[in-house]
Amino acid sequence: MHKPLNIGMIGYGFMGRAHSNAYKQVSQFFNLAYRPVLKAACARDAGKIKAFADNWGYESTETDWRKLVERKDIDAIDICVPNNLHCEIALAAAANGKMILCEKPLAMNGPEGQKMVDAVEKAKVPNMVWYNYRRVPAVTLAKKLIDEGRLGKIFHYRAKFLQDWTISADLPQGGQGLWRLDIAAAGAGVSGDLLAHCIDTALWLNGDMASINAMTETFVKERKHNLTGKVEKVGIDDACIFMGRFKNGSLANFESTRYARGHKALYTFEINGEKASIAWDLHDLHRLQYFDHRDDSKVRGWRSIHVTDNGGDHPYMDKWWVPGLQIGYEHSFTHQVADFLEGLATGNPAMPDFRDALRTQYVLDAILGSAQDSKWAEVKQV
Amino acid sequence: MHKPLNIGMIGYGFMGRAHSNAYKQVSQFFNLAYRPVLKAACARDAGKIKAFADNWGYESTETDWRKLVERKDIDAIDICVPNNLHCEIALAAAANGKMILCEKPLAMNGPEGQKMVDAVEKAKVPNMVWYNYRRVPAVTLAKKLIDEGRLGKIFHYRAKFLQDWTISADLPQGGQGLWRLDIAAAGAGVSGDLLAHCIDTALWLNGDMASINAMTETFVKERKHNLTGKVEKVGIDDACIFMGRFKNGSLANFESTRYARGHKALYTFEINGEKASIAWDLHDLHRLQYFDHRDDSKVRGWRSIHVTDNGGDHPYMDKWWVPGLQIGYEHSFTHQVADFLEGLATGNPAMPDFRDALRTQYVLDAILGSAQDSKWAEVKQV
Amino acid sequence: MHKPLNIGMIGYGFMGRAHSNAYKQVSQFFNLAYRPVLKAACARDAGKIKAFADNWGYESTETDWRKLVERKDIDAIDICVPNNLHCEIALAAAANGKMILCEKPLAMNGPEGQKMVDAVEKAKVPNMVWYNYRRVPAVTLAKKLIDEGRLGKIFHYRAKFLQDWTISADLPQGGQGLWRLDIAAAGAGVSGDLLAHCIDTALWLNGDMASINAMTETFVKERKHNLTGKVEKVGIDDACIFMGRFKNGSLANFESTRYARGHKALYTFEINGEKASIAWDLHDLHRLQYFDHRDDSKVRGWRSIHVTDNGGDHPYMDKWWVPGLQIGYEHSFTHQVADFLEGLATGNPAMPDFRDALRTQYVLDAILGSAQDSKWAEVKQV
Amino acid sequence: MHKPLNIGMIGYGFMGRAHSNAYKQVSQFFNLAYRPVLKAACARDAGKIKAFADNWGYESTETDWRKLVERKDIDAIDICVPNNLHCEIALAAAANGKMILCEKPLAMNGPEGQKMVDAVEKAKVPNMVWYNYRRVPAVTLAKKLIDEGRLGKIFHYRAKFLQDWTISADLPQGGQGLWRLDIAAAGAGVSGDLLAHCIDTALWLNGDMASINAMTETFVKERKHNLTGKVEKVGIDDACIFMGRFKNGSLANFESTRYARGHKALYTFEINGEKASIAWDLHDLHRLQYFDHRDDSKVRGWRSIHVTDNGGDHPYMDKWWVPGLQIGYEHSFTHQVADFLEGLATGNPAMPDFRDALRTQYVLDAILGSAQDSKWAEVKQV
Repeated sequence: MHKPLNIGMIGYGFMGRAHSNAYKQVSQFFNLAYRPVLKAACARDAGKIKAFADNWGYESTETDWRKLVERKDIDAIDICVPNNLHCEIALAAAANGKMILCEKPLAMNGPEGQKMVDAVEKAKVPNMVWYNYRRVPAVTLAKKLIDEGRLGKIFHYRAKFLQDWTISADLPQGGQGLWRLDIAAAGAGVSGDLLAHCIDTALWLNGDMASINAMTETFVKERKHNLTGKVEKVGIDDACIFMGRFKNGSLANFESTRYARGHKALYTFEINGEKASIAWDLHDLHRLQYFDHRDDSKVRGWRSIHVTDNGGDHPYMDKWWVPGLQIGYEHSFTHQVADFLEGLATGNPAMPDFRDALRTQYVLDAILGSAQDSKWAEVKQV
Repeated sequence: MHKPLNIGMIGYGFMGRAHSNAYKQVSQFFNLAYRPVLKAACARDAGKIKAFADNWGYESTETDWRKLVERKDIDAIDICVPNNLHCEIALAAAANGKMILCEKPLAMNGPEGQKMVDAVEKAKVPNMVWYNYRRVPAVTLAKKLIDEGRLGKIFHYRAKFLQDWTISADLPQGGQGLWRLDIAAAGAGVSGDLLAHCIDTALWLNGDMASINAMTETFVKERKHNLTGKVEKVGIDDACIFMGRFKNGSLANFESTRYARGHKALYTFEINGEKASIAWDLHDLHRLQYFDHRDDSKVRGWRSIHVTDNGGDHPYMDKWWVPGLQIGYEHSFTHQVADFLEGLATGNPAMPDFRDALRTQYVLDAILGSAQDSKWAEVKQV
Repeated sequence: MHKPLNIGMIGYGFMGRAHSNAYKQVSQFFNLAYRPVLKAACARDAGKIKAFADNWGYESTETDWRKLVERKDIDAIDICVPNNLHCEIALAAAANGKMILCEKPLAMNGPEGQKMVDAVEKAKVPNMVWYNYRRVPAVTLAKKLIDEGRLGKIFHYRAKFLQDWTISADLPQGGQGLWRLDIAAAGAGVSGDLLAHCIDTALWLNGDMASINAMTETFVKERKHNLTGKVEKVGIDDACIFMGRFKNGSLANFESTRYARGHKALYTFEINGEKASIAWDLHDLHRLQYFDHRDDSKVRGWRSIHVTDNGGDHPYMDKWWVPGLQIGYEHSFTHQVADFLEGLATGNPAMPDFRDALRTQYVLDAILGSAQDSKWAEVKQV
Repeated sequence: MHKPLNIGMIGYGFMGRAHSNAYKQVSQFFNLAYRPVLKAACARDAGKIKAFADNWGYESTETDWRKLVERKDIDAIDICVPNNLHCEIALAAAANGKMILCEKPLAMNGPEGQKMVDAVEKAKVPNMVWYNYRRVPAVTLAKKLIDEGRLGKIFHYRAKFLQDWTISADLPQGGQGLWRLDIAAAGAGVSGDLLAHCIDTALWLNGDMASINAMTETFVKERKHNLTGKVEKVGIDDACIFMGRFKNGSLANFESTRYARGHKALYTFEINGEKASIAWDLHDLHRLQYFDHRDDSKVRGWRSIHVTDNGGDHPYMDKWWVPGLQIGYEHSFTHQVADFLEGLATGNPAMPDFRDALRTQYVLDAILGSAQDSKWAEVKQV
């Protein structure tokens, strides 16, 4: 009664694990027409991909992604490799008629992303980008509250993504686990890695951005490169701040850094509307902060909503445990798979697809352009 | 146009300062018929009381409280001396027709307190006990919410008062600043000192207690005594826990200790009702936590109410600054003076008066009796 | 290279799901000699257990647990049925040489639990009780800190488990999902259900309890019974408070209720030691609060430890994601399975086994006895 | 033994009250050579200033500030009037040899501020600007921690000041209580009013700023003007965001608005250094958040420091109550008076004096210039 969806996974790192876990877990908690089948895993290192496949129960392995995307028994390609490989793989997968689930950011830049959009739209293959934070129940709830009009006119959107793991100047760049510090592989630093998440959520919750003004900084100018063995210039942005305007007239204040001592993955956002405000924080992802000015003034205050009510009110939570028992980071991926599979069944695709994710790419282009030119930049609209 | 109220202060310690500050500050922030005048300060040590009087602007000093209570130019006696002196002074003050403002706890025990009640009622003098926490705006707001029926039937009342300043076994007992550790001066340990506050608030917010079951502990059995210079047995309770039943059927869980590392003055209470709950915490005294089950379930959560709205909704706050700007501990005394003076003017006395405070005394008697007998005790009703 | 461990699951409710999820997930995140195999699931209702088995991938089903415990292809029996069935099943499983993983509480009371201990020890079968909260990383970290002596002499242990789901008098008792309200099936109310968790953690962290003094309350006296269709007396305790003494001299203050409006699963504990204190809260289970008096006084404060550091310092977290990314409730079960499997391999059994869990049973007996007799009760030691 | 310091107060609004309270309270809590004497209060409205003087105990009144600054019996002029009057009064006061305590911001702009600096320096009169937040104990503690080198190299400084009181389009501009919305009286909107505080603290804690890039927004374009009775264009900035660089290489991210629903006076700052980070929040002003990377990683976390330790470690707190008992907003002014008086006695003037406060003025000029020109601006150095 359940239809299999054969997954071909490319990559075996952090995201490879997170997605695999989601594929395995989703079918027990969500009652869906499709069930993912871990058909094949692919990476250049035969030994490593074999170990990965054994661990997760992938039925087979490949060492050449070109072979994988040509396999008849694969329905969907999951791209979990560094950013500079997304486009080529996606184009080939689309050409072979495969569905594509691509890690974020979609591409190295807007034009490259546009090519990917063109490819999947031409091939008419279902496609999705793993901006997983939309599926944290508290964030999904925020979307619902906004769509219900509870906030009224929006004045401010503020987001930050703060980490502290690259402060040491002894940390090298490049290679397994550190490709995010290598400009050639990553295309950008915290902007593409962290701000991309903040932007995706913001565009979803608050609509398109019109213009932005950004600055970037690279605190550690040189690091040993793992691929060359030499000390090389660091090409990525270590920190990025930008301000701007959304098309709805609200102001944007965004910041990201890997030099904020004490913060590990502090993605936060806050939205201030005429009638109500919302705030969220990845370090306590199961909570949503909500202030409603319409409350009786005597008892008005920020509400700390423990987004664990399984009575149907809190998104996704009827699938899990009982009220008060929190889920974690990994479940955002499980939810995204569930929505993707649901979209296949209903024909109402889960977002963000490539086109939707392209919007974030153009904001990133505007950020890097603005920072380079030290002036305001218009955001190219999709 | 303002009537003077001549204050005769006995004592110059922590409470002597807190009350003096309140007398000085109240008239600038509250528009009242009466204005306190710092007429005389009294203590056995002539030099110390002179310095105190000079600092605070008391017009004169006395070294014998008997003389003070007989002075014609004194309207009200403020008793800020150790507990074992409250009764004798109060009786003399009442006999001389003085109003009395007595530090808490009212007395060493219930029967002594009853004598004090009889004295002030016979003399028909205004009287009040300094259970100041009723006048923290967040606590006063809690009272309002309860009186409005927002909580519905009450199931639970929980209170704690946790400190950590007597953990060191090297701390002596007795004398200036340490009389609270001396059973002869204090009459009890944390029960009379800290739980008395918790009980006063509870009786005010939740009505009388019916029965209780208590345990006490003295962790450090002997301490050097400052008055004798010898190591002597410690007579006070270092910690006290009790459970019990209020007359309205709700359950009580109370605890106090001076051995809770990390807590300086953590007086907390929480009340769980059928429809709503309330929680408060002295370490952030300007906030009230409120949960209302009638809220739309999607956005239901504990509200953190910043009790600083000067629009008239938050008790006392229209007298101070602007929304968002917190007041502190000392202002609870200022409010209590204001209410006392208001009560003089209106004839509607500020609570707790001696009779009201006697209720707490009988709960304390039940606690110590229960702990000694290791069994349930009924609370004598006033 | 991995040895299969064939699981026979009895039950398909909340815990049946939680354990099944753990069995499925553990092998991908922990590299262990044994791998659980979902061999058979058992329940009286053939249709329901078939659906459950299909969903989770159990290879077969049974409708009679007696058949299951006799099957040769089953290595371990997991008991996820109401408390009144634990003993009989465990005795049969032990007699058949099966390992046993039993949901908490172990038994209906101490003597019944003793029979179960005798049975598994006689049969020499590995056995464990699902007190899962020991395996929340923050709680495991608390244990480490205590074992390192960071707290010094302990003065206070405080725990609460507060819920609010039974406030409505319209809620019936008995049957699927509501057997916890039925005295015949549950044996006790919040004491056996919720306090059992608090007690297990406490005995683990702070050693045995010596004596206790308890009170219980049943707020709603009668409820419709789902099994009889009639309104019947409620036999369980809706709320339970107890105070007591641990054998190490520290004082206990415990409370549990299902009438604390606003709290869904608020299990909290706090331990105050001479040098440091620890606090934890199930509603933010990925955090541990820690206060260390040895810190430089200028910067001394409660530390909010985000227990997500995968560098090896935070228990279990090296198996999951990257720092800052929280896991949830369900992972406590995954960790418990991992430790059970590790114990099988090393011969150093994971705790609590039946004997260890029997200690909690005797504390529960003392609680209910004390509450009934309204007096102090000694705790029977194991 | 105490020397009187005769105060001439100009203004009677929010700040007139706050300063008066500080003058009255300081001498009882701080043992200083000088004691403020409330000599005269001045405002154009004779009735209002008489009532103000009566309430606070000012000995006399004036209706023309020119007369006040010429009075021989006045030692110090306190300027608590709208920004557009600061300069003229200060110049006259300096010319008459008066000490000056001026409300913030110092001036309408940098050049005007420079004139004021020149005047007081030429006249050699003690002078100070009321940037009171430096004297919140938690903020002063932050300064101490930074000066001790605990944070190491600074990477980020982030500050916000969020309010929500002008969201309603019905609110008029201009006149008593609303001059802050009138560009003629205020000179700027949230930048001069709120960001000025953030900037003063930042320059104090983190040194000078080099360059900034700002944007401003006026959400409500027209408001009724109280002085003209007509609907007029709103000239102030309702919101202002800027990013920039400090001279020490750290990045700045600042924001202020009066359109952040749910925030009353949420002034927050956070500083991220190589070794440690600090955060503070005006809504809980008695707490400082501190993260020290040098802590043992197992127990590393953000510390919530309750800055109420009277043992001498926490700035100013030895003057007040006992540990755990918080002070409030008003005490920052009391501390500033104390420091000013101490500075008079020691000859080591309390900061910020006019010259120090001029630095903030030039940052404000750069902000408004940058926002107008939509480009980066260099900050003029003092």
